[in-house]
Amino acid sequence: MTHSVAILGASGYTGAELVRIIATHPGLRIAALSADRKAGQQMADVFPHLRHLDLPVLTTIAEIDFSGIDLVFAALPHGLSQALVRDLPASVKVVDLGADFRLRDPAEYEKWYGAPHVATELQKTAVYGLTEFYRDDIRGARLVAGTGCNAATVQFALRPLISEKLVDLESIICDLKNGISGAGRSLKENMLFAERSTDVAGYSQGGKHRHLGEFDQEFSLLAGRPVRIVFTPHLVPVNRGILASCYLRGDPRAMHAALADRYADEPFLHVMPFGQLPSMGMVQGSNFCQIGVTGDRVEGRALVVATLDNLNKGSSGQAVQNANLMLGLEETAGLMLAPVFP
Amino acid sequence: MTHSVAILGASGYTGAELVRIIATHPGLRIAALSADRKAGQQMADVFPHLRHLDLPVLTTIAEIDFSGIDLVFAALPHGLSQALVRDLPASVKVVDLGADFRLRDPAEYEKWYGAPHVATELQKTAVYGLTEFYRDDIRGARLVAGTGCNAATVQFALRPLISEKLVDLESIICDLKNGISGAGRSLKENMLFAERSTDVAGYSQGGKHRHLGEFDQEFSLLAGRPVRIVFTPHLVPVNRGILASCYLRGDPRAMHAALADRYADEPFLHVMPFGQLPSMGMVQGSNFCQIGVTGDRVEGRALVVATLDNLNKGSSGQAVQNANLMLGLEETAGLMLAPVFP
Amino acid sequence: MTHSVAILGASGYTGAELVRIIATHPGLRIAALSADRKAGQQMADVFPHLRHLDLPVLTTIAEIDFSGIDLVFAALPHGLSQALVRDLPASVKVVDLGADFRLRDPAEYEKWYGAPHVATELQKTAVYGLTEFYRDDIRGARLVAGTGCNAATVQFALRPLISEKLVDLESIICDLKNGISGAGRSLKENMLFAERSTDVAGYSQGGKHRHLGEFDQEFSLLAGRPVRIVFTPHLVPVNRGILASCYLRGDPRAMHAALADRYADEPFLHVMPFGQLPSMGMVQGSNFCQIGVTGDRVEGRALVVATLDNLNKGSSGQAVQNANLMLGLEETAGLMLAPVFP
Amino acid sequence: MTHSVAILGASGYTGAELVRIIATHPGLRIAALSADRKAGQQMADVFPHLRHLDLPVLTTIAEIDFSGIDLVFAALPHGLSQALVRDLPASVKVVDLGADFRLRDPAEYEKWYGAPHVATELQKTAVYGLTEFYRDDIRGARLVAGTGCNAATVQFALRPLISEKLVDLESIICDLKNGISGAGRSLKENMLFAERSTDVAGYSQGGKHRHLGEFDQEFSLLAGRPVRIVFTPHLVPVNRGILASCYLRGDPRAMHAALADRYADEPFLHVMPFGQLPSMGMVQGSNFCQIGVTGDRVEGRALVVATLDNLNKGSSGQAVQNANLMLGLEETAGLMLAPVFP
Repeated sequence: MTHSVAILGASGYTGAELVRIIATHPGLRIAALSADRKAGQQMADVFPHLRHLDLPVLTTIAEIDFSGIDLVFAALPHGLSQALVRDLPASVKVVDLGADFRLRDPAEYEKWYGAPHVATELQKTAVYGLTEFYRDDIRGARLVAGTGCNAATVQFALRPLISEKLVDLESIICDLKNGISGAGRSLKENMLFAERSTDVAGYSQGGKHRHLGEFDQEFSLLAGRPVRIVFTPHLVPVNRGILASCYLRGDPRAMHAALADRYADEPFLHVMPFGQLPSMGMVQGSNFCQIGVTGDRVEGRALVVATLDNLNKGSSGQAVQNANLMLGLEETAGLMLAPVFP
Repeated sequence: MTHSVAILGASGYTGAELVRIIATHPGLRIAALSADRKAGQQMADVFPHLRHLDLPVLTTIAEIDFSGIDLVFAALPHGLSQALVRDLPASVKVVDLGADFRLRDPAEYEKWYGAPHVATELQKTAVYGLTEFYRDDIRGARLVAGTGCNAATVQFALRPLISEKLVDLESIICDLKNGISGAGRSLKENMLFAERSTDVAGYSQGGKHRHLGEFDQEFSLLAGRPVRIVFTPHLVPVNRGILASCYLRGDPRAMHAALADRYADEPFLHVMPFGQLPSMGMVQGSNFCQIGVTGDRVEGRALVVATLDNLNKGSSGQAVQNANLMLGLEETAGLMLAPVFP
Repeated sequence: MTHSVAILGASGYTGAELVRIIATHPGLRIAALSADRKAGQQMADVFPHLRHLDLPVLTTIAEIDFSGIDLVFAALPHGLSQALVRDLPASVKVVDLGADFRLRDPAEYEKWYGAPHVATELQKTAVYGLTEFYRDDIRGARLVAGTGCNAATVQFALRPLISEKLVDLESIICDLKNGISGAGRSLKENMLFAERSTDVAGYSQGGKHRHLGEFDQEFSLLAGRPVRIVFTPHLVPVNRGILASCYLRGDPRAMHAALADRYADEPFLHVMPFGQLPSMGMVQGSNFCQIGVTGDRVEGRALVVATLDNLNKGSSGQAVQNANLMLGLEETAGLMLAPVFP
Repeated sequence: MTHSVAILGASGYTGAELVRIIATHPGLRIAALSADRKAGQQMADVFPHLRHLDLPVLTTIAEIDFSGIDLVFAALPHGLSQALVRDLPASVKVVDLGADFRLRDPAEYEKWYGAPHVATELQKTAVYGLTEFYRDDIRGARLVAGTGCNAATVQFALRPLISEKLVDLESIICDLKNGISGAGRSLKENMLFAERSTDVAGYSQGGKHRHLGEFDQEFSLLAGRPVRIVFTPHLVPVNRGILASCYLRGDPRAMHAALADRYADEPFLHVMPFGQLPSMGMVQGSNFCQIGVTGDRVEGRALVVATLDNLNKGSSGQAVQNANLMLGLEETAGLMLAPVFP
């Protein structure tokens, strides 16, 4: 059986990635595509690489008839999903790729996003969309909040270690290298090709990145007490991918064992043999996450590295994986595309 | 029904691309992988992006038991397929991705490749693998010779124009921009990242590129008299893709009509509206070829631009498309993967 | 003796390149920097790579006291120089890096730039700034019009061939590969890193690029009759550089001899041995232009390739070279910086 | 007065960078260039971007007449300088860009480089070439050992903090992003363009990188007791540059003050205002190092980021700076070239 989906915000990169994945998905059909500022255009005009597909014309959200839609993917700028989801028919399931429903505490939301939440009742019902850790809740959810792409990467590296108390919570340092598509398609001078193509630069340094809200929420919950990690992302001149280098105190072999054990049956999370570490080129274009662990010459220190594609496993692939669960489909449906290399 | 295939030369880029495509192909199963110098290694060691797949260990060609193999993809360096294919069991079909069987005339082969052909009987039976123009022959063939990647791109742009006598044969100039994966994985100083990442350079300029042998053969056959085009490839710092800018004399609107008409029912060849021209970013990671035509301010001049992914439609995708036909499968099976952008 | 210069439009890439060159120039001193929208900022905020220099604060043009300025570099968007230059004190020399004074015929200007010229008297006095061909006029000029970067590259390849009647004027085809800094620093979606980093695309195809106005003017003047070349630029994912592949009819050895002879004493124009062709990596960051010639297997065909750095020899380096002449300095002063590779 | 220098190992990237710098240096003249495997070739054949220069033909080292040479730059593979320097005339000064004389303790040398040192007497006399910290010793030295490029970057960030006891020595974590030219010009599959252009990968992870020998030596000396930092480099798809993100415990404002104070008069080391951090694009092609400091939302944590060009300030620029001191020239001679951006 094929389910009808709508993609809201189809003119952004995560919107395009949803279309790309769904193009060969056996159980989903794109019934509507919205892009407010580009309404009336063909998707092929906005994303010429998709011109081989037979797709609906872009419309405004207001023009969409949601009565025949089973599930909505909301790939909207932060802040726009809140009122929107509230006003959708209750029969329509929602996977939100934005940040509006990631934080459970309205005060935390306001702190990180600078404005009060306008749909706090909905916020309470949203399930955090880190599939491999909230699978059962996601299956029964009406509204799933996709995670931040950095938040997904680092959580895959650290959650089992925190749960198993294998890591010193006071000295977690995560240095990330980030593909530039994570910044989206909006026009900023420092995102021009000429500015980025030979540059590497950190951003939101010093504990200012919004994904820290997710880390605080999730890691504190796991640890049973407040946890504050150090987390610094860096733009590297690559389109897709996040490589998280996590510097930890603890026993690296025990960490490796915990990760390998926890992810043994996961179709998309792979732990490499001890001492091997992944690189970004291993996952681009796919829903896979590769994780490695090594020790250091200094006893009691470990390096855990995780990598995934920010547009795919970090966003649109995760969204489809969650949609599969919500719609009763095979969890891996449409998501076994192999990474593209070179 | 699933067919068993072997990939010879699996440690090169076209070998990896075959594996990537077949990973989600519904009708093919990889039964053997060879890589003489890396025999004994896991594919995951040679291409870590494929480590999520359950693949046979790399072996030498001599170690392969061909009795259970339906079809062989030979992705070997030029010159190695000739004797090899001669010695395979007659029941095994072969798609050769190399240059050994592209030229029908042994003298032409020797001229362009610098050594006499050692399997001239086989050469006579090989079908030229430009699917959209040799489809019926390919269906019944035992041995199909994959085309050069440049040769495929330019032929898609020009064949209907030559057939329909829409272009001046004395003034065809094709300037190509080529992704660097086309140079393969062999070790050359000028293929190092630091040498190529900010450089653009022509190669085999002045009518020396071997793919000219294919152009001479095919275009002369179509025109019924010798045709010699000017063809110059240029390396650009991109992994995948060929963009061919073809400068022609003739009526651009008639050219557009001929191409649009000829490719109207082709699943992988798309002609854009008149005046629109494709870019490389429209096809990477896919089996599609996009073609556009425009006029010039100078009357009687036209620009035809074609683009495809050299590793996919230009090589491994074409190979799978041909294998589909040879094995009686749906021609598009496994090949509808959408391009990856950004 | 040190001359005081002002740079108008210092927040763009050619403005920054002027500052970079002048930083080690023995005879020029930067007395004023303007950038209307960024007035009040430090240059280090706009271009952090220049923060080691002691530079004036950015101001509006209106704030500049031109009384102590010997020469102005105007690196402004097209159209803004006309009225500006008209209103400057007559004692101030001007090198205009924009397009306002490149075309001598006001009708041609209006045709290519879409608006009538507002300083047609000045336009008559402007000298076309292709240094190696207008050197004597430049020495005595008050106003020099910098050439288009594509226009400079192709003219270096073709002028001696047209002058010496060595090339068929009806079949000149110039295919250019262009670094992306040529598009400037303005905000366009298709100039974002994620859009350009793996793409190659033509633009202004079909005879629509404004630099054709310069080609028409200069080549027709040289030939003594109208000349219309075919010229197509292509964006490649490189910051700096233009590589022009010029497909010509004529005797390649005679062409090589003419170029080698004409440029034998030029400090910045180098002709490679016959059969060798340049690549973009040979000139980046410098004021040099490298030129090569080869034949083709088809008799009577030639390929002439020229490459230069669009921001330097194609714009700001040329501007300084012209300023040196206008101010009575050594022509090469400050311009012998070697290319940066890798 | 002009001094004659020889460059040994001129066919590598640091050799080319030496030539580029010396090309506009007022006090140095290149009298000999060696490249054993490319002896007999012109430098223009090995590095076409240098073809505008009038340079000696490449020779073997044995062919060089050292009697007229004032100073030798040895840019040789690790291990080759030891015997060579021993056999040079005592009147010839030497700047070694390799690793042979960086470590004072022969046991440490053998531990990190896997073979005993063959010139231990010389090793004792060599001065560690971190100019800003060994300036007086370098002035009088005959043999200066250039530092590792990573070693230079991190030491600029940390030395004043360790000297002033402003940082917890047990928790220093340095995550580096490294341009690929640092890997040199040797042929390795994982250094091909197609392998690196969209990848980011760590290397020598887990405390295995040889530059740790330098950190151990220098930081332990400064601290007066053994110091072992965690240091992990990562290859990013950029030609030049190192960006070191140093995660520290201590008071960030005190760190900033110490760095700003220590480097206030340094021509090449610049400390940004507190809270601003540098990016790689600020220094490419130059001898400058930019340093920034910020705090974290977690009290008592600091991030110090330093960036320099590995081929220039990290190697060849440092070498020229040291040569300037050894020859009695102005320390900044030839080194004030501004960074190239974009």
